[in-house]
Amino acid sequence: AIDAQRLLGRIRELGAVGRDAEGRLIRLAASDTDKLGRDLFVGWLRQAGLEVAIDRIGNIFGIWQDANNNGQAPVLIGSHIDTVIDAGIYDGCYGVLAGLEVIETLKSSGLSPSRPIAVAAFTNEEGVRFSPDMMGSLVHAGGVDVEAALAAIGTDGSTLGQELARIGYAGDREPGFLKPHIYVELHIEQGPVLEREGIPIGAVESLQGISWQRITIDGVANHAGTTPMSMRCDAGYAAACVVTFLHDRAAASNSPTVATVGTMRFEPNAINVIPSRAVFTVDLRDPDEQHLQAEEAALAAFLERLADEGITVTVERLARFEPVIFDGRVVELIEAAASKRGLVSRRMTSGAGHDAQMIARIAPAAMIFVPSAGGISHSPREHTEDAELVAGANILLDVVADLAGM
Amino acid sequence: AIDAQRLLGRIRELGAVGRDAEGRLIRLAASDTDKLGRDLFVGWLRQAGLEVAIDRIGNIFGIWQDANNNGQAPVLIGSHIDTVIDAGIYDGCYGVLAGLEVIETLKSSGLSPSRPIAVAAFTNEEGVRFSPDMMGSLVHAGGVDVEAALAAIGTDGSTLGQELARIGYAGDREPGFLKPHIYVELHIEQGPVLEREGIPIGAVESLQGISWQRITIDGVANHAGTTPMSMRCDAGYAAACVVTFLHDRAAASNSPTVATVGTMRFEPNAINVIPSRAVFTVDLRDPDEQHLQAEEAALAAFLERLADEGITVTVERLARFEPVIFDGRVVELIEAAASKRGLVSRRMTSGAGHDAQMIARIAPAAMIFVPSAGGISHSPREHTEDAELVAGANILLDVVADLAGM
Ligand SMILES: NC(=O)NCCC(=O)O
Ligand SMILES: NC(=O)NCCC(=O)O
Repeated sequence: AIDAQRLLGRIRELGAVGRDAEGRLIRLAASDTDKLGRDLFVGWLRQAGLEVAIDRIGNIFGIWQDANNNGQAPVLIGSHIDTVIDAGIYDGCYGVLAGLEVIETLKSSGLSPSRPIAVAAFTNEEGVRFSPDMMGSLVHAGGVDVEAALAAIGTDGSTLGQELARIGYAGDREPGFLKPHIYVELHIEQGPVLEREGIPIGAVESLQGISWQRITIDGVANHAGTTPMSMRCDAGYAAACVVTFLHDRAAASNSPTVATVGTMRFEPNAINVIPSRAVFTVDLRDPDEQHLQAEEAALAAFLERLADEGITVTVERLARFEPVIFDGRVVELIEAAASKRGLVSRRMTSGAGHDAQMIARIAPAAMIFVPSAGGISHSPREHTEDAELVAGANILLDVVADLAGM
Repeated sequence: AIDAQRLLGRIRELGAVGRDAEGRLIRLAASDTDKLGRDLFVGWLRQAGLEVAIDRIGNIFGIWQDANNNGQAPVLIGSHIDTVIDAGIYDGCYGVLAGLEVIETLKSSGLSPSRPIAVAAFTNEEGVRFSPDMMGSLVHAGGVDVEAALAAIGTDGSTLGQELARIGYAGDREPGFLKPHIYVELHIEQGPVLEREGIPIGAVESLQGISWQRITIDGVANHAGTTPMSMRCDAGYAAACVVTFLHDRAAASNSPTVATVGTMRFEPNAINVIPSRAVFTVDLRDPDEQHLQAEEAALAAFLERLADEGITVTVERLARFEPVIFDGRVVELIEAAASKRGLVSRRMTSGAGHDAQMIARIAPAAMIFVPSAGGISHSPREHTEDAELVAGANILLDVVADLAGM
């Protein structure tokens, strides 16, 4: 079994890194606080005697290999340590630190695996500062060119490549240098299913499609007091119509479609000026590619009707990923491991995007979920019980040991 | 007649002060750029040989008085030189600079008025940085205590009193020290009426009521991908519902009610996080106090229905001014002056708030309007033809000369 206190202690230690003046956890990709988190993690990798490799997109790998297995494709465990704004401490970090914990536990057993075992912290999984999300694992899987990814412009106008160089994490390894034999990712569910059903382990067999767009509506600034309602080209009102359209449509849908407008900005943003511009993002998801396309088409048609004399609409694609089906054999291994430890598990789909979704393009992959209290994530109220975290890490241990022939 | 070139040149010179890197005009009250505009104006007052007085709320007065009329209540001309964000060059500045122009013209006639004549630039008329709008004239009229006004917190967290001291415009005169005999304000219409009807001069007899509120909606942050639509407490969606409610209700109304949401902010403002908070402003106006109260009540009722498990609503009052009826005799003087110069005029109401609205509490007051091209204001597209600006200033000249017994 893994060392529960070491794992839990590290989750808390990393969770204390990157707090702002109000105590909010903010470790956006390639920021100053991300650097602090990375430094802490790399220190732990070195302490554990692992080989540390960093690639050009800033992905960090801790690799355990020896003369016996050198040259074999590794079992790769991964997730991310970047966070959203005002985040919880488990999203991503739990999987990365459990990966390290599993390797340290296996290493101290004295046995030698038939394959190398590696843990990865992928760059910019959250996609909050730079789009798309899951960027580091996407580049690792060859899904986008590293140069294109490094040129991504952040919400603050920064460039990812420059930011990685600035914080000292523009590595020298070519992305994809480490081709996994199998990929396993442990993560909190971030949704309500496991808790509601009282099940400790999710064997994740699929992941829904994700569509991200940035929409800019241009209208005409004018005086809030003197401009009759009939003469307005109010970009803020037009944006509000899109928000309610998306929400009400998804809420009324028979499919599990979700639609979110998470960011919004008005210009000039003055109390007595009709907004000349509104810029906002749309996050649309559905487990069914056909449904997701239908939602995108409905939005496009709505935006077309909105565009009018004085109102123009510009749409930029920020991310688009089709639903993914994970590898059935890896899912079965997870179920078997849970059952051996006497833990109930259920097959499930993931509502969130994950690095596993990208690595599944180049290797058999699946995920292990543990419950999230109240289904809450991307919030400081994110919580999973210690015993549940430890149970999930022990399932990861068993699956990895099995895959690495130990 | 006034010196058209001098007036137009000064309007352009002041309009060039306070441009940002993109060329946008931003001279928010008590900011660094406001200081530059004030310095330019005060320089012109001194050049014209006027006595300069600055009061504790930063209102600037240029006073022409001599031994003959010392001690008499002055004829006061006023407006403001602060601007909104991305403003035009006429709103406020036109009236202040025309006031100075009128005094210089009368001064150079060699005659002496039976009363002093003064021009005022009131602090923070726009209300974009600090609430309420028309603050300097409100304080001058005794409508709010100067200490309370100086304690106003800006949208950037600054304090008005500190900002005035910082830019060197926390004067030593007690607000209200100069009690006007009559107040006249010349302004661009900022609305579409005069242009549409081809009328050069508006004799403004009333001004609609203004209601400003800041609304904060608190919901629950959660993951955009994992949270079913039915389990969301989406503060951004709730805010969008308020925006569409206000707009659609005002648009459908039989009264000339206008409703504007000019500012909007989401928290944490991340693409894949359901907004935990939305903060926005509501600007409601109606020429009829009863109607305005009904609109406010409808909004309050809507907000009450919105507040729900997981959604809380907080309302702050930023400004509230009842409709104002100007002094009939001053309005008649304006009509008579226009008619003497062979200019058509019409009586009208003002959709915008103005300093005249505050000074009307302590002295007979009225306003002169000139046309706004396309009815556009609070926008860089704000425009009035030179000949129309000059015509308006000449009407002001005649009205002031008459009132000052010249
Ligand atoms: N797991 C997770 O929160 N990933 C961030 C990408 C997403 O928005 O799904
Ligand atoms: N005249 C003018 O634009 N005043 C600003 C206050 C307001 O009406 O919003």
